[in-house]
Amino acid sequence: MCGIFGVSGHAEAARLTYLGLYALQHRGEESAGIVSFDGKRSHAQQGMGLVADIFTEQSMRSLRGEAAIGHVRYSTTGSSIERNVQPFLANHRRGTISVAHNGNFTNTVSLREELEEAGSIFQTTMDSEIVVHCLAQSKVKDYRQRMIAALARLEGAYSLVLLLDDILVGARDPHGFRPLCLGRKDGAYVLASETCALDLIKADYVRDIEPGEVVFIQKKKLESVKPFPAVKPAYCIFEFIYFARPDSNIFGQNVYQTRKRLGQTLAAECKADCDVVMPIPDSGTSAALGFAQAAGIPLEYGMIRNHYVGRTFIQPSQGARDFKVKVKLNPIRDVLRGKRVAIIEDSIVRGTTTRVRVNTVRQAGAGKVCMCVSCPPLRSPCFYGIDFPSKKELIAARRSVEDIRAYLELDGLCYLSLPGMLQSMPLPAEHFCTACFTGDYPTPLPKKITKDILEKRG
Amino acid sequence: MCGIFGVSGHAEAARLTYLGLYALQHRGEESAGIVSFDGKRSHAQQGMGLVADIFTEQSMRSLRGEAAIGHVRYSTTGSSIERNVQPFLANHRRGTISVAHNGNFTNTVSLREELEEAGSIFQTTMDSEIVVHCLAQSKVKDYRQRMIAALARLEGAYSLVLLLDDILVGARDPHGFRPLCLGRKDGAYVLASETCALDLIKADYVRDIEPGEVVFIQKKKLESVKPFPAVKPAYCIFEFIYFARPDSNIFGQNVYQTRKRLGQTLAAECKADCDVVMPIPDSGTSAALGFAQAAGIPLEYGMIRNHYVGRTFIQPSQGARDFKVKVKLNPIRDVLRGKRVAIIEDSIVRGTTTRVRVNTVRQAGAGKVCMCVSCPPLRSPCFYGIDFPSKKELIAARRSVEDIRAYLELDGLCYLSLPGMLQSMPLPAEHFCTACFTGDYPTPLPKKITKDILEKRG
Amino acid sequence: MCGIFGVSGHAEAARLTYLGLYALQHRGEESAGIVSFDGKRSHAQQGMGLVADIFTEQSMRSLRGEAAIGHVRYSTTGSSIERNVQPFLANHRRGTISVAHNGNFTNTVSLREELEEAGSIFQTTMDSEIVVHCLAQSKVKDYRQRMIAALARLEGAYSLVLLLDDILVGARDPHGFRPLCLGRKDGAYVLASETCALDLIKADYVRDIEPGEVVFIQKKKLESVKPFPAVKPAYCIFEFIYFARPDSNIFGQNVYQTRKRLGQTLAAECKADCDVVMPIPDSGTSAALGFAQAAGIPLEYGMIRNHYVGRTFIQPSQGARDFKVKVKLNPIRDVLRGKRVAIIEDSIVRGTTTRVRVNTVRQAGAGKVCMCVSCPPLRSPCFYGIDFPSKKELIAARRSVEDIRAYLELDGLCYLSLPGMLQSMPLPAEHFCTACFTGDYPTPLPKKITKDILEKRG
Amino acid sequence: MCGIFGVSGHAEAARLTYLGLYALQHRGEESAGIVSFDGKRSHAQQGMGLVADIFTEQSMRSLRGEAAIGHVRYSTTGSSIERNVQPFLANHRRGTISVAHNGNFTNTVSLREELEEAGSIFQTTMDSEIVVHCLAQSKVKDYRQRMIAALARLEGAYSLVLLLDDILVGARDPHGFRPLCLGRKDGAYVLASETCALDLIKADYVRDIEPGEVVFIQKKKLESVKPFPAVKPAYCIFEFIYFARPDSNIFGQNVYQTRKRLGQTLAAECKADCDVVMPIPDSGTSAALGFAQAAGIPLEYGMIRNHYVGRTFIQPSQGARDFKVKVKLNPIRDVLRGKRVAIIEDSIVRGTTTRVRVNTVRQAGAGKVCMCVSCPPLRSPCFYGIDFPSKKELIAARRSVEDIRAYLELDGLCYLSLPGMLQSMPLPAEHFCTACFTGDYPTPLPKKITKDILEKRG
Repeated sequence: MCGIFGVSGHAEAARLTYLGLYALQHRGEESAGIVSFDGKRSHAQQGMGLVADIFTEQSMRSLRGEAAIGHVRYSTTGSSIERNVQPFLANHRRGTISVAHNGNFTNTVSLREELEEAGSIFQTTMDSEIVVHCLAQSKVKDYRQRMIAALARLEGAYSLVLLLDDILVGARDPHGFRPLCLGRKDGAYVLASETCALDLIKADYVRDIEPGEVVFIQKKKLESVKPFPAVKPAYCIFEFIYFARPDSNIFGQNVYQTRKRLGQTLAAECKADCDVVMPIPDSGTSAALGFAQAAGIPLEYGMIRNHYVGRTFIQPSQGARDFKVKVKLNPIRDVLRGKRVAIIEDSIVRGTTTRVRVNTVRQAGAGKVCMCVSCPPLRSPCFYGIDFPSKKELIAARRSVEDIRAYLELDGLCYLSLPGMLQSMPLPAEHFCTACFTGDYPTPLPKKITKDILEKRG
Repeated sequence: MCGIFGVSGHAEAARLTYLGLYALQHRGEESAGIVSFDGKRSHAQQGMGLVADIFTEQSMRSLRGEAAIGHVRYSTTGSSIERNVQPFLANHRRGTISVAHNGNFTNTVSLREELEEAGSIFQTTMDSEIVVHCLAQSKVKDYRQRMIAALARLEGAYSLVLLLDDILVGARDPHGFRPLCLGRKDGAYVLASETCALDLIKADYVRDIEPGEVVFIQKKKLESVKPFPAVKPAYCIFEFIYFARPDSNIFGQNVYQTRKRLGQTLAAECKADCDVVMPIPDSGTSAALGFAQAAGIPLEYGMIRNHYVGRTFIQPSQGARDFKVKVKLNPIRDVLRGKRVAIIEDSIVRGTTTRVRVNTVRQAGAGKVCMCVSCPPLRSPCFYGIDFPSKKELIAARRSVEDIRAYLELDGLCYLSLPGMLQSMPLPAEHFCTACFTGDYPTPLPKKITKDILEKRG
Repeated sequence: MCGIFGVSGHAEAARLTYLGLYALQHRGEESAGIVSFDGKRSHAQQGMGLVADIFTEQSMRSLRGEAAIGHVRYSTTGSSIERNVQPFLANHRRGTISVAHNGNFTNTVSLREELEEAGSIFQTTMDSEIVVHCLAQSKVKDYRQRMIAALARLEGAYSLVLLLDDILVGARDPHGFRPLCLGRKDGAYVLASETCALDLIKADYVRDIEPGEVVFIQKKKLESVKPFPAVKPAYCIFEFIYFARPDSNIFGQNVYQTRKRLGQTLAAECKADCDVVMPIPDSGTSAALGFAQAAGIPLEYGMIRNHYVGRTFIQPSQGARDFKVKVKLNPIRDVLRGKRVAIIEDSIVRGTTTRVRVNTVRQAGAGKVCMCVSCPPLRSPCFYGIDFPSKKELIAARRSVEDIRAYLELDGLCYLSLPGMLQSMPLPAEHFCTACFTGDYPTPLPKKITKDILEKRG
Repeated sequence: MCGIFGVSGHAEAARLTYLGLYALQHRGEESAGIVSFDGKRSHAQQGMGLVADIFTEQSMRSLRGEAAIGHVRYSTTGSSIERNVQPFLANHRRGTISVAHNGNFTNTVSLREELEEAGSIFQTTMDSEIVVHCLAQSKVKDYRQRMIAALARLEGAYSLVLLLDDILVGARDPHGFRPLCLGRKDGAYVLASETCALDLIKADYVRDIEPGEVVFIQKKKLESVKPFPAVKPAYCIFEFIYFARPDSNIFGQNVYQTRKRLGQTLAAECKADCDVVMPIPDSGTSAALGFAQAAGIPLEYGMIRNHYVGRTFIQPSQGARDFKVKVKLNPIRDVLRGKRVAIIEDSIVRGTTTRVRVNTVRQAGAGKVCMCVSCPPLRSPCFYGIDFPSKKELIAARRSVEDIRAYLELDGLCYLSLPGMLQSMPLPAEHFCTACFTGDYPTPLPKKITKDILEKRG
């Protein structure tokens, strides 16, 4: 998964982008980058790690200009290399091009073959570089038409921000898988994956970029086109379930309130016979509040999150198994001892982490441990940008709910139903892609969805 | 403020200490250090910053031996220098001595003068070095007697762990200002500021070190003495209010439940006329839960904490004021709009941060904003280790509650009463030091409580 | 200026390359890089600074495989950026290509325009990337023919080493401006700018790559072609005068002995009336020895070079002018006091450094100070890879010898004559490019030899 | 070995010290440090490595004040730890004390025992810390008397510079083993190990500090005392042979000319039957020039020194033996082939490096290889500050000259005689310590000259 941000026409373009990425950090912790354009030249700064660690006052000063885009990237197996840090920047006879991408093209393999056949040399394995080569090989003179022609070659899921010199471009694929919103700050337009990025820079939310829409922004003026035939929308429902920040609005709707509603519906479906309701912090926190209030069962913070848990951690040499999970959350014995506990979690992917947590709650003295999950079982991989593991590793793809309960050593396990999930959403059911739950993919998929493609996800 | 940890008789002494410090990180983010003893030599590793950033696999491997102590240090104005990183380590003709200290001596100035007059050279401005010189200048042969003689020269607040070669010493001042607990892991004894450090290493909690107690631990054997005349206890009540981790037990009692009880008492005292109760996360979270449940008013997470907020942050060049506060917490407009909100906070020190937060809630559309604080007004400085600002900067030292309300631009402000606070505590009132609220200091204070002393706080 | 190295068919390919670059460090101190190929993938390590600082044991271990090429790059104004570090590496549908280049193409501007018109995207401003795009756009199937077709598009000066997967290619332009020699180590072929690189790895010198020759080396087999029409050779004479290491052979001949001979001829031409002969260390050392022996005047080391002088140096805030020059060389007063001194220098470029040195010798007490230069006045810029400054900055382009003498505050100044220089060479006069002395360029030059081109020199 | 520098009364005190250390870098490459005093506080910056790498513009700015001292330290086995970096700085009730030391105390063990018995705690194993404790334990009020009382407790070799707040103190032991000279810059006094440090900062040489002299410098005024009974001088002759820079004057005399004279005497003693004379660069360069001129045999630079050779070097994994020696010097085959060569070297310590070099010359094709050494055989360890290896490792301690010749695989080997060395010196023979050649130590030595002491050498 990734987060993207762009701004044009603001004297503090790079700094706003830095802040935007800071707010979008949860969408990608592996690497980050910013490219700015100062009227003549592009400037780039990027690195592996967290936004706060990569950029310095000195590097920010070098990012001159009134237009900038930025990107944060999630860790995906096999391609955690510095070369693949976005935005991808290239100098071309028509000027500089930089691209930041969130999503996943489904025709990467064939597109790349075509482009290399025509003489293109690829520096990276990123989708964003493909966009640049599509632009470079096009003979169309008008940059808008060239942009549209390049986008027309892309299939799959994308929200994109680009800089063509000082022109900021924003684009969302016709299905609208990934979010992208438009804001305004001191008269300048801003693009961001989520509204939390607008909040941090005190920009006003204007509207979402629509599925299939392309916007060209230059010197505080915005031009919008919708050049592609309309198709059924397919908003990623998992953004609401897990991925987006609770204080964000995505697809025009608040995430926290949606999660709380999922908890309420969950309480109606799962009649938990328990003394206390406790969330897995912080992923289950919003749903647990909704659950507790709807069920009339007291909420307790039975586990406390260690706020200093980062990525590096020196493990003890003995008994290190499960350590990473334990260092993050510590149960409170005095709260849990002898209680019948209903744990609220947002989702279960592999099940390994959940198993450790359940065990931790039990070790802390809980008398009975149940779990209520605020979405249905995850059964199918995502080809549109969420880095779920392969089908083999998704626990619900292979096992029944009863098997999962046994594996997790729970006294009870309850998933939210598909209708329950959809009815808790703030938008009609037909707006969403629910492929990870149902296996119904909203686009055709090429046969070659190879390991290679999986590695290129942005 | 500081956190301390020690272990003796365990093959993984340094790694356990690393984990202990990791768990105690909230007690001091400025610097950290570990000293180990391998039977012949001492090894030290330390640095500025967070535990996770300072220690590496390589540096851990160098910390050989079955005994180790560690320290995390809080940032205090003026003395954030590398030289002052603890534990303080010295080689002496009788062996190596290392000391980690939590608290504050009140006779630092006169002690230092005496020691220098006798020829001591000080490398640092830390209290822990004073302990070492007291030990070095003593002519007493038995190490226990020497230790007790050295402690007898100290006045004020201290919880100490020391290594005299492989002998682990733990000591708590006769008033018992700061917590210090004893645990056991694989037969080896462990000392730690809070039980959360025992939890992380899966050590069993044995008991608290008592006020005035000194323990000598060698090869899994513990010897305890109480060489000083008994005095009235003076446990720091602010550890319960704010400082300790909610999942810890200190002074034998759970912190989270105490805070929840403070919230319940607060609800009884402050009849808030509001639609929703929201905490300042995470400091007010436990109290808010207690408050909401006692008052029967819905709890809402009206502000979301950004989990990536660390210490470095590049601020925007314009309008940067209050930025640091805002980047940490983001309000949810859809939750707050038009609502009458009761914010629950654990305490107000200077008021500057609180003011920004109140403003943020109002800007997010709240119709009416009140605040309920789960302790009485903070009116006096602490000379026992809490780094409160000077009296001049404590907002409640200079202003009435009504003035504070006006300054914070609140529609209502309610502090918990002193009796309310004491009755919410899990121990009788006479066990506590409440000087920061009342100005009644439990020990005599020398006239020279100078800026110098304040800088030396550990 | 740059140094290049390549090896194929050796288990220690990257380590040999590291050592080769270490030996060639004098050809470029700004940046260095190594690319290896392990049968499946390419590995690259590069950075700004000196070879010894860039590569670590860890980075060397990552450079797996039996084929490797490397590059050291000289500092040129305006383009000291990390992006421009060589070798340039690209992945293409036909495999990986990496290129290290020494020299300067004279048709860069037009070539780049053609390539971009056809859709190429340039990542850098380096000549070596141009070679890769020429290869990528070619439709020819046989890699040898494709290589030759790509080289045929290049004009100007180049010595190149490339890796096409595990095939090592070496090429020298038809005029043979830059040196490139072939060696053998444990049966594997090695290519290097100078023989000092062969010496360090204990490789045997086989022969020089000839002007216009292209060699393809795979699995210890070498195939040589000379596909281009023969032209008059134009070996860079300045490599003998200044650039190459004295212990190297270039163009098949020893550098130290050539410089000593230049000193002998200089002694015959310049009848210096002096007590002692002293070199500017180390550039004038070889010539000074020849001069002293031919003239029968005692040699003295009147100035001592500080071996620790590197690139970074903190200057005094007052009187800092000329400091960098002075920290490098210190005169010995007791040697120079009252003496008539003949300073031997290899060449004078801008004259600013020389002026400080002359002044230093005079301040040390010399009675009379003359200078004898072991080449003629430098009057014209180089378009073939030597980073001379523009004509405006070459002191001899604007001033007479007498004017230069006066500017340098010398009592006497004598340059070696053009015939004297040529007769001291170990090869016939017609083998050399002497354009920097005469302005006679051996190739046609495009009108657009712009600042841009100058920045791209490798 | 070490280099020391101090200055008082100059606005650029720290920068001058930086430059002084830069010039004295050859006296110690392991670590360096500077302490300054700004009228109120001391500031320290230090680190492992070379002066140019340790100090930055930022760190220099922090070294405020008009008084500063500095130190460079040589690598000695076993104690290359950061803690031991000088100057040693301490805060005491009488102010701050910092000490930089060159030499070696011979009564370290007993002094340390006495000091610890009285309560001192040692932070390091450095001689300079001992000086500080002697000062701190003294009850004498007058700082001059206190200084003299402290020095009176020291035995062995020392040149010291100290800062007592802003008072710069310089002291040389009564025998005067190590050099220390006095200079003047802009009216301010400067102390330095060698005059090359004065040259770089353009200070005027005033005179040497005399054996047994102590100088107190404050605000451009100098007070000199000679409080100790006069003893026979014992200047280290090895400073002239090898250690000092050729462009320095030490003990009032020029080093380069002394070395040239050693070469001349050597030529008279060793009738080398050879075609060419070549130095081992740069240690034998001065002597070789004297030798060649006196013998009337042509000088040739048969080996070229690689100027980029630093401390770190990644060795080839196979055949790495002797690699470090070879990377530094490369022979010129065309010069040596078939020649009878006389190599001039300044001294032979272990013989291992020399053996590789002789082999290298022979491999390069020399017909006959002799070596002439410009000092007698080194037979005894030094207890006064030169880091010779133990007697066991000194090749001449165990072997006859003929055995050494055979071990080095030379056709001939000739050492300068003791009388020949002494007659080449610029001062009478009785001024020198020649213990390393003769075993006659000018001071009594305690029985406990243990490995411990050896590790503490500064």
